[in-house]
Amino acid sequence: MSQPPRTAKTFPPPVMEARRWLDGVTFPKDRPLINVSQAAPVDPPPEQLRQVIADAALHTPSAHLYGPVLGNPDLREEVAAQWSASYGGDIVAGNVAITSGCNQAFCAAITTLCGEGDEVILPTPWYFNHKMWLDMMGTTAVPLPCGAELLPAPDAAAQRINERTRAIVLVTPNNPGGVEYPADLVRAFYELAKEHGITLIIDETYRDFDARPAPPHDLFTDPDWGDTLIQLYSFSKAYRLTGHRVGAMVASPARLAEAEKFLDTVTICPNQLGQIAALWGMQNLSQWLAGERAEILDRRAAIHDHMPKLAAQGWRLLGCGAYFAYLQHPFAESSDKLAPKLVREAGILLLPGTMFRPADDAAGGQEVRVAFANVDRDGIATLFDRLASLRWPLAPAPDRA
Amino acid sequence: MSQPPRTAKTFPPPVMEARRWLDGVTFPKDRPLINVSQAAPVDPPPEQLRQVIADAALHTPSAHLYGPVLGNPDLREEVAAQWSASYGGDIVAGNVAITSGCNQAFCAAITTLCGEGDEVILPTPWYFNHKMWLDMMGTTAVPLPCGAELLPAPDAAAQRINERTRAIVLVTPNNPGGVEYPADLVRAFYELAKEHGITLIIDETYRDFDARPAPPHDLFTDPDWGDTLIQLYSFSKAYRLTGHRVGAMVASPARLAEAEKFLDTVTICPNQLGQIAALWGMQNLSQWLAGERAEILDRRAAIHDHMPKLAAQGWRLLGCGAYFAYLQHPFAESSDKLAPKLVREAGILLLPGTMFRPADDAAGGQEVRVAFANVDRDGIATLFDRLASLRWPLAPAPDRA
Repeated sequence: MSQPPRTAKTFPPPVMEARRWLDGVTFPKDRPLINVSQAAPVDPPPEQLRQVIADAALHTPSAHLYGPVLGNPDLREEVAAQWSASYGGDIVAGNVAITSGCNQAFCAAITTLCGEGDEVILPTPWYFNHKMWLDMMGTTAVPLPCGAELLPAPDAAAQRINERTRAIVLVTPNNPGGVEYPADLVRAFYELAKEHGITLIIDETYRDFDARPAPPHDLFTDPDWGDTLIQLYSFSKAYRLTGHRVGAMVASPARLAEAEKFLDTVTICPNQLGQIAALWGMQNLSQWLAGERAEILDRRAAIHDHMPKLAAQGWRLLGCGAYFAYLQHPFAESSDKLAPKLVREAGILLLPGTMFRPADDAAGGQEVRVAFANVDRDGIATLFDRLASLRWPLAPAPDRA
Repeated sequence: MSQPPRTAKTFPPPVMEARRWLDGVTFPKDRPLINVSQAAPVDPPPEQLRQVIADAALHTPSAHLYGPVLGNPDLREEVAAQWSASYGGDIVAGNVAITSGCNQAFCAAITTLCGEGDEVILPTPWYFNHKMWLDMMGTTAVPLPCGAELLPAPDAAAQRINERTRAIVLVTPNNPGGVEYPADLVRAFYELAKEHGITLIIDETYRDFDARPAPPHDLFTDPDWGDTLIQLYSFSKAYRLTGHRVGAMVASPARLAEAEKFLDTVTICPNQLGQIAALWGMQNLSQWLAGERAEILDRRAAIHDHMPKLAAQGWRLLGCGAYFAYLQHPFAESSDKLAPKLVREAGILLLPGTMFRPADDAAGGQEVRVAFANVDRDGIATLFDRLASLRWPLAPAPDRA
């Protein structure tokens, strides 16, 4: 008999589902929608960068043609050079693949590591697209519940390793939790993976907004890092290039030769203008990016500043950093029911914790993710005022069936 | 025990392998390389279209931001309208998904149809990226050898259908064979698929260069086409947008809701500038495209004009159309050995038939694919002169180990 098709094994995209909660809802002028559902800049890149893209479109013929599957050599070189400098390791262009976004880098990594029935350990709350890819690939996502500080424990991970385990995935700074994993914790996971001959995948999509001055880990200083480590990165957040789909996968050349099979088949090559933009951004926007980071860190501080008024209503801040505040709400209702109601009741679009946890993990019902990067200090004050004024029971969302 | 990872189940990208044959080879001024290995325009899009992309980069903020997973509504509408007009069926925007290239549309289609161990019927010679995706997905590619005219036979396909069969894939005009499948043949495959409750995937990447004036098939006139048919398309060839990664998948809304899971996870959304370019091209470049088509058809005629001098040396033209001439060579050596030698011996880069056939299919050793779209009439004359002057035995390619 036929198997269920791969897509039948997973759920619809949460961000698209949440967008549908907006259908038919109008927001009064004095209470516009506050959309904290998606982790993405809402402003375009700086004008100079837009000009670079425009110039390439007009005057660089190769910007319209196929390029190498693993990305353009100049961008791969630049990533290698900047990574070597910032992580203190030896990373060469042959360690870098450019992908059509960081999600694709994760998909490529898993596809080089896992076959049907293999297992991958994911700390929970997890990033839903990671779970979706593992579902579709017939790879079991083994949940690793984080502790009170939203930090995963290496010894708990060790207990979940068996002969089918192929990788552990860490996202730091974390999505959805916002937590920056301490360097020694990341190192402990690396040693665990190395000891068991499995791979540590570390997704650093939000690395440019890490609050710490020092490198977030020292894994690349191990000369043999390529045997154990795969690092993932996104150019989308740093340079506001979400619509261009550019990410990266840093790994051993042998791993990238395997990834090349997947990337060739699924997209042939990353698009050229996005790569040109990412390269120019890396080479010219470091000061601008420092300003962006300072702004995000200030917004993060605003979350903490305004937290007392929410705490007074029974809310708890479970984690905060990068683009995210991860909150525990005080209501009896599960977050998957609560979140759609917040659209009408409070003019807020956020994602429920149920989207970031296994179906049988009750914690998700008590949690919500606020992607605050697009909301300035005033907006965060308003957001928290609206949340603090919510009273139980909320009006039910109208039946859309 | 762990399975082999998915990528271990398939072969490296043929186009990248062929590019490596060029490493270290220099070509004399009077005999430059003729590269007929890849089916892609080598010129950028027309200046007006480049200007549209540049303007969007400068002045359209949303061109830099995430868009809907299934593509921008305006482009989906345009495809639906033009398809309805040209195929004579009822196709709406909800039937159209925009993908990051046509390869990705194929991957999405298969992922919505197949689980581990399922089967898909592919006429041989086949398009290698189709085979690669099936390999990686644990889906068995069941070869359906074509007859003398490179046409697949429905009754031979019927014999290969069993309870694990999920789809039949047709590529028309064909890659690598160049053959345009007659409308009644396509219809016969559609009826076969419908009868067995399986899906017919029809890849029309090269539809804009079909020599026939009439629609290439009438499948969309069946009001129930969405139950059986998935059509794939690429904007890359028509508008010279290979570097922008834009393709399409036309299917039932229910099928696209499943594809959305895959597309969200693997790329989040198609890139925006590529979609803007594709839309403008569809709305403004129909006359220009008619000229492109006429030029390709003239090059195809040139293949036929020059064929006699090759035939005199024992070559045979097995198929010719779209971007491709598929040839049988007269040498004792297998094409996978012959092709690398042609780089040095003749200054020609083409792909061996072995790349388009199962490993146990001896026919591939006798075949080569010439992607002639980038070579004008004079170039085709030169190419055929070089091939006709080849004498056995060819000098061996130096050992690169």
